[in-house]
Amino acid sequence: MIDCVFCKIIEEEIPSHKVYEDENTYAFLDANPTSRGHTLVVPKKHVENIHQASNMDFMWNSIVKVSNAVKDAFGAEGLNISQNNGEVAGQEVFHMHFHVTPRYTGDEIDVNYDREKLKDGEEIAEAIRSEL
Amino acid sequence: MIDCVFCKIIEEEIPSHKVYEDENTYAFLDANPTSRGHTLVVPKKHVENIHQASNMDFMWNSIVKVSNAVKDAFGAEGLNISQNNGEVAGQEVFHMHFHVTPRYTGDEIDVNYDREKLKDGEEIAEAIRSEL
Repeated sequence: MIDCVFCKIIEEEIPSHKVYEDENTYAFLDANPTSRGHTLVVPKKHVENIHQASNMDFMWNSIVKVSNAVKDAFGAEGLNISQNNGEVAGQEVFHMHFHVTPRYTGDEIDVNYDREKLKDGEEIAEAIRSEL
Repeated sequence: MIDCVFCKIIEEEIPSHKVYEDENTYAFLDANPTSRGHTLVVPKKHVENIHQASNMDFMWNSIVKVSNAVKDAFGAEGLNISQNNGEVAGQEVFHMHFHVTPRYTGDEIDVNYDREKLKDGEEIAEAIRSEL
């Protein structure tokens, strides 16, 4: 048994504010929300990250359903979906989870990082293609 | 015909650095990357955002495949997946797209925003559940 806080939430050993559940997925409020309605969507089966999730396309419909409900519940003007893999990427709980974060005018969340014009594009693309 | 830059990239009317294509999806390098290997995964069919994508679970496998390839191509230590809906959420092109952004130690991208401890959790959860 993996000592995982999200597994315990799914098993209801640890309380959470559940918003949705189906055969393969579970969704509950983030305990430290970025905005009102911030919800996490997770697979019931423990996987650490996206690289272990090739057979989990059931996640898609839950992410869309929860996104629609979060938007409608609070009249959100927009919504970010995000998923972090690895400590360097900001992952804090090592059970794969998708953040659904409603957005409102003036909420002061900035998701557009420093970006530069692409250089060496064909070299980079070829490096990725060679892994596909 | 919608005047959409991503539709034109998919149709190859506008050049891009393509990394992957299958029947329903297309992936290419972001022209203004946050980090080396930053790739976008999009559906070929034009939809504006996640709320119009309930029948697009084919996106899942392309996102996972591209994530694996981007990580392996550059030895990334981590990876962020993100998707923005609406101008307030930072969406700039209104053809749904998932960012796959490799992460490296010291890259100075901070994805963990100001967060507060959840208040009124059950009220919020009930508002979302009532939309599901």
